[in-house]
Amino acid sequence: MKERKILLSEKDIPEKWYNIMADMPNKPLPPLNPATKEPIGPEALTPIFPMGLIQQEVSAEKWIQIPDAVRDIYTVYRPTPLYRAYNLEKVLDTPAKIYYKYEGVSPAGSHKPNTAIPQAYYNKQEGIKKITTETGAGQWGSALALACNYFDIACEVYMVRISYDQKPYRKMMMNAWGADVLPSPSDRTAAGRQILAKDPNSPGSLGIAISEAIEMAVQDETTKYALGSVLNHVLLHQTIVGQEALKQFEIAGDLPDIIIAPFGGGSNFAGLSFPFLRLNFEEGKKIRAIASEPASCPKLTRGQFRYDFGDTVGMTPLLPMYTLGHNFIPAPIHAGGLRYHGAGVIVSQLLKDKLIEARSHNQLECFEAGIKFAKAEAIIPAPEANHGIATAIQEAEKCKEEGVSRTILFNLCGHGHFDMSSYESYFSGKLTEHELTEAEIHSSLSELDTPTI
Amino acid sequence: MKERKILLSEKDIPEKWYNIMADMPNKPLPPLNPATKEPIGPEALTPIFPMGLIQQEVSAEKWIQIPDAVRDIYTVYRPTPLYRAYNLEKVLDTPAKIYYKYEGVSPAGSHKPNTAIPQAYYNKQEGIKKITTETGAGQWGSALALACNYFDIACEVYMVRISYDQKPYRKMMMNAWGADVLPSPSDRTAAGRQILAKDPNSPGSLGIAISEAIEMAVQDETTKYALGSVLNHVLLHQTIVGQEALKQFEIAGDLPDIIIAPFGGGSNFAGLSFPFLRLNFEEGKKIRAIASEPASCPKLTRGQFRYDFGDTVGMTPLLPMYTLGHNFIPAPIHAGGLRYHGAGVIVSQLLKDKLIEARSHNQLECFEAGIKFAKAEAIIPAPEANHGIATAIQEAEKCKEEGVSRTILFNLCGHGHFDMSSYESYFSGKLTEHELTEAEIHSSLSELDTPTI
Repeated sequence: MKERKILLSEKDIPEKWYNIMADMPNKPLPPLNPATKEPIGPEALTPIFPMGLIQQEVSAEKWIQIPDAVRDIYTVYRPTPLYRAYNLEKVLDTPAKIYYKYEGVSPAGSHKPNTAIPQAYYNKQEGIKKITTETGAGQWGSALALACNYFDIACEVYMVRISYDQKPYRKMMMNAWGADVLPSPSDRTAAGRQILAKDPNSPGSLGIAISEAIEMAVQDETTKYALGSVLNHVLLHQTIVGQEALKQFEIAGDLPDIIIAPFGGGSNFAGLSFPFLRLNFEEGKKIRAIASEPASCPKLTRGQFRYDFGDTVGMTPLLPMYTLGHNFIPAPIHAGGLRYHGAGVIVSQLLKDKLIEARSHNQLECFEAGIKFAKAEAIIPAPEANHGIATAIQEAEKCKEEGVSRTILFNLCGHGHFDMSSYESYFSGKLTEHELTEAEIHSSLSELDTPTI
Repeated sequence: MKERKILLSEKDIPEKWYNIMADMPNKPLPPLNPATKEPIGPEALTPIFPMGLIQQEVSAEKWIQIPDAVRDIYTVYRPTPLYRAYNLEKVLDTPAKIYYKYEGVSPAGSHKPNTAIPQAYYNKQEGIKKITTETGAGQWGSALALACNYFDIACEVYMVRISYDQKPYRKMMMNAWGADVLPSPSDRTAAGRQILAKDPNSPGSLGIAISEAIEMAVQDETTKYALGSVLNHVLLHQTIVGQEALKQFEIAGDLPDIIIAPFGGGSNFAGLSFPFLRLNFEEGKKIRAIASEPASCPKLTRGQFRYDFGDTVGMTPLLPMYTLGHNFIPAPIHAGGLRYHGAGVIVSQLLKDKLIEARSHNQLECFEAGIKFAKAEAIIPAPEANHGIATAIQEAEKCKEEGVSRTILFNLCGHGHFDMSSYESYFSGKLTEHELTEAEIHSSLSELDTPTI
């Protein structure tokens, strides 16, 4: 009997996160002050993040020790299994060897707790009593709720109103772990009250929710804010995924030729691929890493590399990134976690330097890939995860055409238990595709008055 | 760092199921023909079940080999982890050692695939092309859909209309695995059409859905029917759970004093406890096994041991069981999987012989226990699983009162991802408790004209 799962024991949980900044040939350009356009230092972040995380944000150290208390909570669901997708290989009739790292085993159902747990830890270390954040569909909010519960920190989640009303299950999950979940816009903040005064029935947006969460964080010394992707320290924490996978491939006596992960802000992709890219830097390996993004939000494949705001409202420092423009509004696709206008600065620089690749897929293709996967491998993937699957299937089919065997690894970053209504839309033929025109992208980018690079 | 999870590798998946019938001091009484009241043999079951399963239903063999093809599909999610609940122990401040076996890691989210997979296998062996079944909230239906997908057998699920309309996520899950899901009553069967003619808006019931599924099975030689609990072969398949747990306790160098599992028809409870009860029979151990049932459907704690129908319509042979009467209609509690009027014959005989125990819990107590567990151990349990947790917490608190340490094991049979609306009812204070009176139970039992024992 062939073994499907390559498992590690809890004592194999990596002791260090890998910081790719130390190995990058070209370091990311500095963030700029939006007013002066001058580079700004890490101190600008102190009102909203604890020092422990700010230090990681700018660290040049190659290896960063994972605190024991964090590793201890990681054992709630880590190490996660590495699966060999024998059934999918058979269905595709491909000579490729396909593996996937399954992060959906976390109690929150995705990879997000990998960073939520250390973020809560470093806040706790500095005496923080409450963490605020925003959430769209709720994946990040539930991961942070879970983490705060473990460190006995209050968690206040501003959930976009329309999701709050339409997707109550994620809200209940956050409540179960003790978080306070408010529909955004709320009347708890000045930002929220201002919106509500104009439109009491506002459906909200991620931008408004961010404003509310940050407003609450800056006005109280013992409250901080947390972000679930994009930033360097978030990418760093996610490298636990690739570090584990590397050990699992050693056990399998194999090594990926191609690594694939869905791309929203970058942490999912970075988490799996960076520890393998290290082998390219150190040993001259030629492992390819492909970021899979939605065709409706194609910052990597059709965006511009320039300075832009990290948020949609224009409150953050200017960051050097691939962007569609911070005013770009992606079509309302079901993979909510990938509807972000820009890419984190590290990933952007790597793409600029051609050290990684990117590929886009439309929504119908992704759901088709997800169903093919579910019928072969039993797990029903999150819509975000379907993007990685779509790329993996393309690469496996290419192996068949070319008659070569390559080893493909992708990140199955979460299950779809809270996304079954998207599958219903797909099955009932209600899913439509919006072909994004050059004019639409140009229009959003041409509005920017931020520095080009 | 203490290890939370005791893991086995795929090659440790047990090779045999344990058949407790071989060890029982008093074997269950035979099923009776409802018309003649004479004992009936296994041949009565041939129109609806394949011979491979009927042989298991009446087998006196102590060990039954698990086919390699079944073990191979078990590897999709098995072995499941055994957790030591360090956090829960700490919250309860108890000297007890608490362990739980987590069956929610299966792609269908519960222990049900443990029997769905072999049932599909034995049907496939006999050339069966389609399996029909009924489902309420959808746990059993999705497990069977998953299993049939793997053996390329068509799966036709009659889903109680009101659940079909109100809980569409489970239906989508079944569709994702290729099953055909019909709201019951449907116009595909005579039974369904008859109901619809009287009431086109009938909300359906489990009884009607069973009638429809069996009707479709008996009229076609290549179609059979499948049941998810109660029957001996179903209990047998579930012993994979306890067999694994036994190996995991060997690794832990421990042995449970008390084993606890939720009780609906008996397979959940039997699966975890029977392999440990074997040690009582063989080695004179005194391991206690407690079945946790809802106070609103208390067949074990307040029912009568007598012959009754296994279904609510009166189509099955008469079975010797603890029952509340097949016409008993339990309050609409959220643990839909436990709303069954009777107990399987093996478990009933064991209770009659005082070889196992039973305890009931009301719904609010169960949700309170579930939230306590979720905050301590991160996993959000299914409402059914909360019953086992409630008993485990009681026993742990008793250890504290008595100042003794006992080892407690319970079956965390599934996650609550598809049940978050029940948690919403709980949080919003909408959950009410129906105190079942003696008169209500008496009224349902006094209607029976089946043989007493």
